[in-house]
Amino acid sequence: MRPVGVIGAGKTPFGAFADRDLRSLAVEAGQKCFRNAGVRADQVDAFFLGNFAGPSFTGQNHLAPYVSTALDMTGIPATRIEAACASSGSAFFHAVQGVAAGLYDIVMVVGVEKMTSQPTPRVTEILAAAGDCSGEILCGSTFPSLFAMIAKRHMHDFGTTREHLAAVAVKNHENGALNPDAHMRKTITLAQAMAGKPIADPLNLYDCSLISDGAAAVIVAPLEQARDFTDKPVRVLGIAQASDYVALDQKLDITTFPAVRAAARKAYAAAGISPKNIEFAELHDCFTIAEIVAMEDLGFVERGQGGFYSAAGQTRRSGEKPINASGGLKSKGHPVGATGVAQICDVVQQIRCEAGERQLVRHALGLAQNLGGSGASCVVSILGSD
Amino acid sequence: MRPVGVIGAGKTPFGAFADRDLRSLAVEAGQKCFRNAGVRADQVDAFFLGNFAGPSFTGQNHLAPYVSTALDMTGIPATRIEAACASSGSAFFHAVQGVAAGLYDIVMVVGVEKMTSQPTPRVTEILAAAGDCSGEILCGSTFPSLFAMIAKRHMHDFGTTREHLAAVAVKNHENGALNPDAHMRKTITLAQAMAGKPIADPLNLYDCSLISDGAAAVIVAPLEQARDFTDKPVRVLGIAQASDYVALDQKLDITTFPAVRAAARKAYAAAGISPKNIEFAELHDCFTIAEIVAMEDLGFVERGQGGFYSAAGQTRRSGEKPINASGGLKSKGHPVGATGVAQICDVVQQIRCEAGERQLVRHALGLAQNLGGSGASCVVSILGSD
Repeated sequence: MRPVGVIGAGKTPFGAFADRDLRSLAVEAGQKCFRNAGVRADQVDAFFLGNFAGPSFTGQNHLAPYVSTALDMTGIPATRIEAACASSGSAFFHAVQGVAAGLYDIVMVVGVEKMTSQPTPRVTEILAAAGDCSGEILCGSTFPSLFAMIAKRHMHDFGTTREHLAAVAVKNHENGALNPDAHMRKTITLAQAMAGKPIADPLNLYDCSLISDGAAAVIVAPLEQARDFTDKPVRVLGIAQASDYVALDQKLDITTFPAVRAAARKAYAAAGISPKNIEFAELHDCFTIAEIVAMEDLGFVERGQGGFYSAAGQTRRSGEKPINASGGLKSKGHPVGATGVAQICDVVQQIRCEAGERQLVRHALGLAQNLGGSGASCVVSILGSD
Repeated sequence: MRPVGVIGAGKTPFGAFADRDLRSLAVEAGQKCFRNAGVRADQVDAFFLGNFAGPSFTGQNHLAPYVSTALDMTGIPATRIEAACASSGSAFFHAVQGVAAGLYDIVMVVGVEKMTSQPTPRVTEILAAAGDCSGEILCGSTFPSLFAMIAKRHMHDFGTTREHLAAVAVKNHENGALNPDAHMRKTITLAQAMAGKPIADPLNLYDCSLISDGAAAVIVAPLEQARDFTDKPVRVLGIAQASDYVALDQKLDITTFPAVRAAARKAYAAAGISPKNIEFAELHDCFTIAEIVAMEDLGFVERGQGGFYSAAGQTRRSGEKPINASGGLKSKGHPVGATGVAQICDVVQQIRCEAGERQLVRHALGLAQNLGGSGASCVVSILGSD
């Protein structure tokens, strides 16, 4: 396996864009990425598209060539990957693996989702299709209620509190307010976060990520070729994808995700590092409790300590282990199929020292964790300066 | 790249199964494949699922772990691939590439689609999402009408006739009648095929493939390990995936598919053979005209000669180049996400000399061609006895 580098990145702003369709978002991100990488369309050997539910949200399927040809790529393998909210994390995984193994040299990965053209109840229904529709969803669960159960249990087992959850929301809004591409650029107080409209007890509105439109793109290449394209290649030190049961009721313990632990173990081993070496991370905070569980499953803190650690401010930009300096899914937005690649873009931006007001002091070694459903799919990527 | 072998295959019958859901079909194929390969679930390193439109047909998304965990696989990367009707051909492509490059040893690929739970007009609408919904589909086209235009133009340019199209249907029904797993096991006469109910002129009912439920699975492994599992490994001699514009109106010439030509060129080069070496083939006859165009794009015959060659009987089991001895999509059935892997199963069955009444005399070197949409995605696989 040869070392792989990210040689370029590009994103659309995230938000609700009534006048934009899926393809125009994907093309904007792809074109920005081409410019950033100094790569031409005819240099790309393979194209991967991460998208969760384009057919349901927009009516369009067969999305990989639909996007790649609009970016002037024909002839090459153009493949859509679906892994729920980890769709484009998985697309990035397969792209990196392909380059590492010598199957391809230059590979583009785009993640995209166009969600806001559907009314919110229909969006909730489309998202619920990432759960087990023959079980938990049939019984009336949606993702807010599934993660509410996880939160309840986490509170019961470990003493996590509503204040802990709210601290995650406050921190992510604080970060997102500094991100010009974030969907919701506003700070909130702890009191506001505590008093949000109830969604599924104990989660309120401020515990839930956003319904957004957006796209993100990266180009990967063998590290030895990376400097032909950019002065700032970012090395992929380790990456892994893992899977687990879709239905929450099939899990032995709902406050930990074995797929996250499995992917993290492999990614750390590949990178030759341990969790304490990670300087910052973009974690999949689809709900505030998900960020807390993720930091535990990734080994940033002991089991059950994620809430306390967050409330102590250790995950703020000024803390010991900054998490979601981008604003995360909570404030930056969560166009589900775009999120995995957007996380990579955010980590790349920090490592390149291009994160503007959100720039972290320690930014040489970052991790991105992209989750699908209530833990059935997970991709963990570790990136570092070259 | 190391040589790769198919070490096992398994399929459900294809048909309309009111009492079966998507997962039970996928699991049946997967379990048959495990038994056929002599592989246990815990030996599998990665899982790929080919599925086109499960969310639209059945409401269930996030399909890879939904299926893989039901086959007792957890922890590994479980990835769904969507490439319209080439979804599972593409899943097979990525699996083979991953093994060839040393990323994985044992990989399972399942293709599945459950279509018949929706009424036919809704099925047509779901399938049309593989076309360009911002153009040709918005204007009222569906796949029958798109392929009707291709047929019309082929007739105009090359003198192809209605009889030529009907000959393809008659031959595929003749073959499918001998296939115990085929959806429609009945022979038809040329007169019947000519007099079918009009669908989109010049295509009638007998020119169109079937709306089916079904699943198919294969397991691939490094060839050097294959004989640890089976006495009859089948070698993947060459495989390639290519892409092109989704909308028919973006193509310069609608009677040839550049993605098929590109994939074929690469697959032949990898196998070190030419089209004339291919002894038999499973081609993507979503419509009769598609089989004719495919045999031309694959170089089996000169441009424009596919209809004449078919009418001369050269693609029958007794002919020079038997095509779709399984019955093809026309008679075997076309559960779209299952079709690519089912083609591989059919080629493997011939090479292993296990095709029963359909067994071909020359069966050492076979090709499978899996098409997505009106040519935007294509996977060509060349398999041979080891």
